Amino acid sequence: MRLLDFFRTRRASSASVAKERLQILVAHEHAHRKRTPSYLPLLQKELLAVISKYVKINPDDMKVSLEQNEHEEILELNIVLPEESPKKARKTN
Amino acid sequence: MRLLDFFRTRRASSASVAKERLQILVAHEHAHRKRTPSYLPLLQKELLAVISKYVKINPDDMKVSLEQNEHEEILELNIVLPEESPKKARKTN
Repeated sequence: MRLLDFFRTRRASSASVAKERLQILVAHEHAHRKRTPSYLPLLQKELLAVISKYVKINPDDMKVSLEQNEHEEILELNIVLPEESPKKARKTN
Repeated sequence: MRLLDFFRTRRASSASVAKERLQILVAHEHAHRKRTPSYLPLLQKELLAVISKYVKINPDDMKVSLEQNEHEEILELNIVLPEESPKKARKTN
């Protein structure tokens, strides 16, 4: 249920401010006690590289957390996006 | 709160079976009414390509869903991984 808590907290605190946001969650559940090194920190960099193709990401507007225990790892990226659309210019309403 | 519901359902139903699982969630919240085409279907393919570098993914063991409304898009990937670690062979206990 940690994942739920993560999202509950983040989304509740952000609900009052209308911003363009991107949230990425990667959860790896291990069937048995975890014995291998995590690949999530490496994955994180590659994910950001991929996402940067589609949306503009300012590193200052990004929060990254990685939580690990012996059964589960959760990588979370919370990104506040600049007020513009990925490809086309957009007027606000 | 949709994201919470997603995870609650998925995780509750999977809790009884010990399997190696990977869950990826990408949620894009729009500050205003969404007017641009979604990039998430394209992103999905690239995410899978990146993740495949680290874990073996069998397309048959993967569920993908993309939900969209005018304020939010949520891409969800649920992957059951083969019983082996990303890089090293591992004995089960």
